[in-house]
Amino acid sequence: MKHLLQLNFSNKNIIILFLLIFLKIDSYSQFEKDSIQIRRIFDMALENGQAYKNLRVLCKEVGNRFTGTKQADSAVNWGYNLLKSMWVDTVYKMPVMVPRWHRGNIQRAYIYHDDIKLNITALGGSVGTKRKIKANVVVVNGIEDLENVGQKNIKGKIVLFNKPFDPKTINVFESYGACVNQRYSGASQAAKYGAVGVLVRSMTLQKDNHPHAGSMSYSDQNNKIPAAAISTEHADLLLEEMRKKPNLRVVMKMNCKTLPDVQSFNVIAEIRGETEPETIITVGGHLDSWDMGEGAHDDGAGIVHSIELLNLIKANGYRPKHTIRVVLFMNEENGARGAMEYAKWVKLRGEKHLMALESDAGGHTPRGFAISAPDSIFNIISGYKKLLEPYGCHVFKKSIWGGGVDINPLKLDSAVSVNPNMILMGFIPDSHRYFDYHHAETDVFENVHKRELELGAGAIGAIVYLIDKNF
Amino acid sequence: MKHLLQLNFSNKNIIILFLLIFLKIDSYSQFEKDSIQIRRIFDMALENGQAYKNLRVLCKEVGNRFTGTKQADSAVNWGYNLLKSMWVDTVYKMPVMVPRWHRGNIQRAYIYHDDIKLNITALGGSVGTKRKIKANVVVVNGIEDLENVGQKNIKGKIVLFNKPFDPKTINVFESYGACVNQRYSGASQAAKYGAVGVLVRSMTLQKDNHPHAGSMSYSDQNNKIPAAAISTEHADLLLEEMRKKPNLRVVMKMNCKTLPDVQSFNVIAEIRGETEPETIITVGGHLDSWDMGEGAHDDGAGIVHSIELLNLIKANGYRPKHTIRVVLFMNEENGARGAMEYAKWVKLRGEKHLMALESDAGGHTPRGFAISAPDSIFNIISGYKKLLEPYGCHVFKKSIWGGGVDINPLKLDSAVSVNPNMILMGFIPDSHRYFDYHHAETDVFENVHKRELELGAGAIGAIVYLIDKNF
Repeated sequence: MKHLLQLNFSNKNIIILFLLIFLKIDSYSQFEKDSIQIRRIFDMALENGQAYKNLRVLCKEVGNRFTGTKQADSAVNWGYNLLKSMWVDTVYKMPVMVPRWHRGNIQRAYIYHDDIKLNITALGGSVGTKRKIKANVVVVNGIEDLENVGQKNIKGKIVLFNKPFDPKTINVFESYGACVNQRYSGASQAAKYGAVGVLVRSMTLQKDNHPHAGSMSYSDQNNKIPAAAISTEHADLLLEEMRKKPNLRVVMKMNCKTLPDVQSFNVIAEIRGETEPETIITVGGHLDSWDMGEGAHDDGAGIVHSIELLNLIKANGYRPKHTIRVVLFMNEENGARGAMEYAKWVKLRGEKHLMALESDAGGHTPRGFAISAPDSIFNIISGYKKLLEPYGCHVFKKSIWGGGVDINPLKLDSAVSVNPNMILMGFIPDSHRYFDYHHAETDVFENVHKRELELGAGAIGAIVYLIDKNF
Repeated sequence: MKHLLQLNFSNKNIIILFLLIFLKIDSYSQFEKDSIQIRRIFDMALENGQAYKNLRVLCKEVGNRFTGTKQADSAVNWGYNLLKSMWVDTVYKMPVMVPRWHRGNIQRAYIYHDDIKLNITALGGSVGTKRKIKANVVVVNGIEDLENVGQKNIKGKIVLFNKPFDPKTINVFESYGACVNQRYSGASQAAKYGAVGVLVRSMTLQKDNHPHAGSMSYSDQNNKIPAAAISTEHADLLLEEMRKKPNLRVVMKMNCKTLPDVQSFNVIAEIRGETEPETIITVGGHLDSWDMGEGAHDDGAGIVHSIELLNLIKANGYRPKHTIRVVLFMNEENGARGAMEYAKWVKLRGEKHLMALESDAGGHTPRGFAISAPDSIFNIISGYKKLLEPYGCHVFKKSIWGGGVDINPLKLDSAVSVNPNMILMGFIPDSHRYFDYHHAETDVFENVHKRELELGAGAIGAIVYLIDKNF
């Protein structure tokens, strides 16, 4: 067997061999080093994390904070002061003009004569009903069903958009994606067929009696009809009553209206990068919420996740290579003006972004990240899965649409034009409970689980650490 | 380049090539076929599942069902009648003698003179206090700390076992594993140092005022001291008071006791296998619970998961190759007598088990399975990960300890002696909330999420389908 061991090395071969050994040791120890660092980030988040405490203050002391309201101003001040008190280099407010939609004090619906109350809430952006609407109801299974039902059956009626979430879809965000156009565009589309008003089945899998709010918009400024969300229980009740009396009439009364734009702010904090300060990693969530509940999952969780990143970096005792910029975006829910203003500002300054990450999918157990990046970059990031597997946060999905409403405008032309390899990333927590609370009165602090929230902060801390270090 | 394409095939090579092509096509279509079947299983569980409805009845109509109580008898009857009403070949009750520990009507503790109440619950198996105990308190950080503290400081005192769950441990079952010996053996160990009673910090990460029950046992039948769980809030309160008055005394009064064994039952249902009926796949959970709350997660979830498997098989319209046996085990919580009786019975009949699977980790979002099997088998099963990845249930962990309390006795000598390749599997759901409710008043139906429960049933249905089909 001796001849097997008699290897005849050329100098070149020896160099390659040494290089291989060296690289192997180096890559092994790098994995270990990263593992230790990530372990520290999670330890910090779970043992001394501030995310839950910060969320309590945001939910209980500021409360809900709809764009253009005094509470939204309070949220800006809360965010600014909190960030100011932290270990950061800069904190500033970026002015942004935001829409001001006012819900008013009347939003009710009932089945005429029988006085059966229907639990509704005006959709953000809707016009009011002037006096009131009293009309027959026609049920359609989503926008795609309008044409089948036809103008003859729709004209002069209230359209009930009743396409439900499909319980078979595993990721509930996909169920939402398949239905939400009836909320956003239902009124515009139904108006083309002569409808006089719109009720939209609430965007949730739950059978509950909370109407789930949300935004809508009009494509034709000259043909605006009022639109409201109806609770799933009352959508079903209405269907039941219509089975008995197909010609029943529903009365809708809403006095919501749109007022002139007002000024608000994105709130921004930065830790200056050590070696590449001109290259930015943006991490953010949105500060505004709907005007019900406390905006705890949507998007209090994303706000405190983002702020917590600064604590985790500090506790971990490393200065990032790139500038870490935490952005608390204003007006995601009904306009995304903060997002657009930020993208415009980035473009104006010709800033280079390495990455933008958004947490706007709630505070449940982290599962992974949706990643929008060129294949070569995506493949490098996929290599980090193993490091996040011990934390159960290793679903890395390629995303074509981006990372979230607040960071996607960066992709359009502003940041990508400077860095075509820019990474957009959306944090993915467990989706199963998110739409139970989404845009409803039940989106309160008590429905966020401390440990799950903290694990999310850890996951975001870990991925930002890896991207900052390796790119 | 022509010469590259001029392949010179021998007959043997041609056969191998055809075989490779054939196997590739076959394995591809097999993956597709399995994907479709698994998709159907999940669809059924999510769209027409009975698990949640069954859990409601078990929790709300039967209620909690501690071994040896009338409610445990009701649970046996409920399970038997439900299984009888289903599409199965056989349903029977397997008699088993079970312990009968009676909590009594007195279990209280307070700080003497100050009358500060401490919220406790007797540990299952504990002796009572006869009249009462009034003693100083000494705090130890787990059993391993007893020796440090020493007999001099322990003798004549009540020991507070105060080792908390470590929030940094990602899988909360591991935190439990690191602390639970102080609950199970704390009294026996403390008695050796002359302690007169034991309080054990509740086994939870939550700071709450619910004592979390659980079992204990005595190693020395002649030196039994009473043991109770204390809520985490009141453990901390006691520590706080002891900081002010190190010599305070605590009074404990409990009149719990052990009565003679009584008869109960495992409830068993079978679907006879089509081609290998003599080989068994056992799937089960435990029917008994603690005597507080409703045993919803522990282990109502496992019971309805197991029963749901029969619905999923039926709905999917296939007859399994092997006999599927659903076992509702009795007395997991304080004796595992049902488990031991079942293993004895399997041995007596010389039955061959392909697999035993247990669901006793709650009804939260499924994450994967702990698998105890020879490496060659484990590797085959690991190949199914890709099929379960779309459902987020693809953490396949090698387990050395088995699959769960109720199926592990099969490993000792009964089933493994017949089939050394037997697979033991434990269902792994998300662990983060489980110990919030574990063995406490809060383990009620309302804390189980319908969709998460149904996804668990789907995951179990899918893995049983794959194992049955491929082995």
